[in-house]
Amino acid sequence: MIRVLLVHDSYLLRSALAALIQAEPEFEVASAAWRDARSRARSLQPHVCVVDTDCPGSDKAARKGELGKLMAEAPAADSGPESGLLVLANAGRPGQLRRAHKARALGYIDKNAPPQRLLDGIRHVAKQERFIDDSLGYGFLKAAEIPLTERELGVLSLAADGASIAEIARTLHLSNGTIRNYLAAITRKTGARNRVDAIRISRCEGWV
Amino acid sequence: MIRVLLVHDSYLLRSALAALIQAEPEFEVASAAWRDARSRARSLQPHVCVVDTDCPGSDKAARKGELGKLMAEAPAADSGPESGLLVLANAGRPGQLRRAHKARALGYIDKNAPPQRLLDGIRHVAKQERFIDDSLGYGFLKAAEIPLTERELGVLSLAADGASIAEIARTLHLSNGTIRNYLAAITRKTGARNRVDAIRISRCEGWV
Repeated sequence: MIRVLLVHDSYLLRSALAALIQAEPEFEVASAAWRDARSRARSLQPHVCVVDTDCPGSDKAARKGELGKLMAEAPAADSGPESGLLVLANAGRPGQLRRAHKARALGYIDKNAPPQRLLDGIRHVAKQERFIDDSLGYGFLKAAEIPLTERELGVLSLAADGASIAEIARTLHLSNGTIRNYLAAITRKTGARNRVDAIRISRCEGWV
Repeated sequence: MIRVLLVHDSYLLRSALAALIQAEPEFEVASAAWRDARSRARSLQPHVCVVDTDCPGSDKAARKGELGKLMAEAPAADSGPESGLLVLANAGRPGQLRRAHKARALGYIDKNAPPQRLLDGIRHVAKQERFIDDSLGYGFLKAAEIPLTERELGVLSLAADGASIAEIARTLHLSNGTIRNYLAAITRKTGARNRVDAIRISRCEGWV
């Protein structure tokens, strides 16, 4: 029996996905919203955690490092194999793939894949095998080519949250001029028309 | 037999939702991505169109008026009842509810509702009856209290897409000073710290 924990913030969608997985006799599925995910992982000790990274709640959680914290709760008992992370991802948002990779996800399913791929992915990850949808290849390529440095991403995240230059400068203990230089570099590197456009482009690709 | 057309850009999620609906013997379900939605509606002539408005593809489509165009293709044959629109919505994004209401949606299901609500909603909309999840009430209240005028929304949409003040002014045939005044009013009315923050808040609530 493979124990699966499915994390998704919409009850309707996680019920539908859980029913799809549960239809296979070898899977035992529980599902949870993000706010309950860690305690469910602790009590269930799932073999596989399935997370839809392409929805607003998960995206926010992933940016806060919740993917890693979830997996820290989830390792199966000492006798069994470790728990593995499988993410549902959007091929057009390399930033999501990058965060999933940082959280050491083993499986990557394109949200545009047929349901059979998800079931195959769960089986592979339960055996601690890597499983990557072919159609996500280009997204991984883009994720590897991220145009911004960690520092620039930090500045951009704060700007995207609505912080002013002075606020960003205070938060990062840098001068206003330095932040302006970072924002100019970010705008140039993302091929944006201006700062707002740089935030829009980066959000769209999932970088911030 | 109630014919249902389910529109969602993720093949995986629309397959899972379709399976959930199809499990009821009285429903006949087809599903489509947005790019095929209108032609499927034309050929299927569904009694109910189910659209998840809280995902990036649908949100974009709804902002372009695609909800209305979809329903224009979908009326059932002259003998039968008209086709009805049922949306899956996020209670925290009143702008989505507003767009669905403008497209004359009959049914509104909270994405956090149990699956049974979706099935009930489809049955009501197929009978041309309004169906609104209780939990969306506050969202509708907020949708009715939209703080921005149509003109301000137009300015904000262009700004959110990365247009500069000069570009917005050219597009709307107004002066740069007028656009600056609109943006200042938008920032004040949304309680934002600055223009980027106003865009962030408005995006978050689904206004633009």
